[in-house]
Amino acid sequence: MSQPKSFQPPQRRLMGPGPSDVSQRVLDALARPTIGHLDPAFVGMMDEMKGLLQYAFQTNNELTFPVSAPGSAGMEACFVNLLEAGDKVIVCQNGVFGGRMKENVERCGATAVMVQDDWGQPVDPDKLEDALKTNPDARLVAFVHAETSTGAQSDARTLVEVAHRHDCLTIVDAVTSLGGSPLKVDEWNIDAIYSGTQKCLSAPPGLSPVSFSERAAEAIKNRKTKVQSWFLDLSLVMGYWGAGARRAYHHTAPINNLYGLHEALLILKEEGLENAWSRHAHMHQALRAGLETLGLNFVVPEAYRLPQLNAVTIPEGIDDAQVRSTLLNDYNLEIGAGLGALAGKVWRIGLMGHASNADNVIYCVNALDEVLSKMGAAVKSGAAVDAAKQVLASSAAA
Amino acid sequence: MSQPKSFQPPQRRLMGPGPSDVSQRVLDALARPTIGHLDPAFVGMMDEMKGLLQYAFQTNNELTFPVSAPGSAGMEACFVNLLEAGDKVIVCQNGVFGGRMKENVERCGATAVMVQDDWGQPVDPDKLEDALKTNPDARLVAFVHAETSTGAQSDARTLVEVAHRHDCLTIVDAVTSLGGSPLKVDEWNIDAIYSGTQKCLSAPPGLSPVSFSERAAEAIKNRKTKVQSWFLDLSLVMGYWGAGARRAYHHTAPINNLYGLHEALLILKEEGLENAWSRHAHMHQALRAGLETLGLNFVVPEAYRLPQLNAVTIPEGIDDAQVRSTLLNDYNLEIGAGLGALAGKVWRIGLMGHASNADNVIYCVNALDEVLSKMGAAVKSGAAVDAAKQVLASSAAA
Repeated sequence: MSQPKSFQPPQRRLMGPGPSDVSQRVLDALARPTIGHLDPAFVGMMDEMKGLLQYAFQTNNELTFPVSAPGSAGMEACFVNLLEAGDKVIVCQNGVFGGRMKENVERCGATAVMVQDDWGQPVDPDKLEDALKTNPDARLVAFVHAETSTGAQSDARTLVEVAHRHDCLTIVDAVTSLGGSPLKVDEWNIDAIYSGTQKCLSAPPGLSPVSFSERAAEAIKNRKTKVQSWFLDLSLVMGYWGAGARRAYHHTAPINNLYGLHEALLILKEEGLENAWSRHAHMHQALRAGLETLGLNFVVPEAYRLPQLNAVTIPEGIDDAQVRSTLLNDYNLEIGAGLGALAGKVWRIGLMGHASNADNVIYCVNALDEVLSKMGAAVKSGAAVDAAKQVLASSAAA
Repeated sequence: MSQPKSFQPPQRRLMGPGPSDVSQRVLDALARPTIGHLDPAFVGMMDEMKGLLQYAFQTNNELTFPVSAPGSAGMEACFVNLLEAGDKVIVCQNGVFGGRMKENVERCGATAVMVQDDWGQPVDPDKLEDALKTNPDARLVAFVHAETSTGAQSDARTLVEVAHRHDCLTIVDAVTSLGGSPLKVDEWNIDAIYSGTQKCLSAPPGLSPVSFSERAAEAIKNRKTKVQSWFLDLSLVMGYWGAGARRAYHHTAPINNLYGLHEALLILKEEGLENAWSRHAHMHQALRAGLETLGLNFVVPEAYRLPQLNAVTIPEGIDDAQVRSTLLNDYNLEIGAGLGALAGKVWRIGLMGHASNADNVIYCVNALDEVLSKMGAAVKSGAAVDAAKQVLASSAAA
């Protein structure tokens, strides 16, 4: 190992599937003095955080807090608390993260019945209905609201309705949707939901906001066995995050990361959730105009596209890795590779949170135009940037 | 909820059981621009981090990295990867954290045979030996090297020797010892070890450094069943943290927290591990002189005291909570309450990492002298501060 020294990361534009660009306000918050996890000043911040998360999730759920670990741990928190060995779960899969749900189910000693849809398509509510009819003993339905691996959005409200008709609880993956596109936990009657901080909230990775309905909380209370994870056991965690002035030590919360999330949620509140959703939609339209002018095609049909995660097919004969490393090295621009079945076949261009802005759209379209034209896969003409600018101008005028 | 605004934490002195004071260098590192978890620049930092952690642990173990969550998750990572349902484990308990180990064992479907020692005493190797003789089918021995709830240090080297004589693997809790007092993973033949960042490393909480020996890695490879936690499954995590340029996505690493840990480990390397251990020992002696002059008695016999965690008995008739809140509100000084069986009976005064310095020793002794004398439990005379200063002067001269 060469002599290590202080790490000075380069200044990138993060337009992959997350982490997204973190604003200076949030970075500044991270660097505030560390205080104790039981300090009354910190506990006051935790109370505010809960209110801010309830706003972001559009819920009044009492059981709303950030798990002290990344989104994958939030996913696991939902499954290990709601499942017991022998349970049966319907898992709808239309990308990588449905597969991860299956892993979680099986590691709880439960059975996963898979409902498959093509990658890039939304989850089909009719297929879910059929699976529930065939499996009347299923207790739970799990699906991904916004598939980060494809950029497809599923109709969470309808899927939850179907699940509830068959008396199943629901677990919803909202890692990529929270803060970026419409999500209404109470109105849609979602029972358990988890997200991440490094997507449309634009806080650093490391925390996973979760929320549980009354009905889910009741199911947890009535468990016959202990939760298999001590760290993620909600009956213990809530001694710390639950209401009331008396906070019991469970584990040491990631203090400074929580400062960052608090600031990021505050920024979202200041902008307003609906305004944030509109901004993501506008930026997506501008990026789309640019990418389509470059001849790049979207993986997901228009009706189901997530504005914050744009998966496009890599043109024939173009070297995936070379393009991405040129963008990173020559433009300090990170876009995402394909994941799972789509590895090598698509690029995933994120427009998430703080990174979802006009400057990034123009910069990315121009960089792709330059790099692809050098490889003979586009004609550098400025037309793509103009197309994006036109959309931006029209939305500004609107 | 009142209108939330940016959170401005007070500037405390953190002299509890952790988190400890975080230096400005580490805080500055946290605030550097977020980059991607697969960015080659970040991967280079990860390689350095591994070397720095190997130095801190005094090990060449390949399997050495920070779990992306607090120490409790590091503990769980050790147990879920090394245990399978039906296994038998000897757990030595002499404080709160041995009890948490038992919870972990049982939630893996394994059996915990408890070896109890009094709180404040070290783990007795003879009792462990007896338990191993009575339970020849035990596969694993787990114990806490440095009990954060009492400040007692156990003889890890001997305990591991005993365990190995009976062909058991070992899991060692080094949350409070790493960086603060002698710990030699390779020399002591420890098989699996976990720690935290917010104690003697003085990085913010949220990460858990772990290390696994070849023997432990082999045991994990030979498992018959999948690890019950997807998030903590080492066979998957090592696709990301393992050697080699090709890092596979598992979960999104807590980027900025890792910047902080990297800087904290660098500071430790610059000081030198042995120097850090000596500093902790010196500061402890000075604090001890001050506290004893105030009439405060240590919970742990001298031979087993951890320099970084000083548990003293609360004088008869003194209101625990009132003293701690006065110190916090009037002095911005955090000391720790008792935990578990010692709640309300002891204070835990930390001298950990960056917080283990002469200024803090003097400040704490003086503050306690003032607060206790107002309550009639000491006579404010300056003698306690003088006693501490005398030790500091002698060690400076040495």
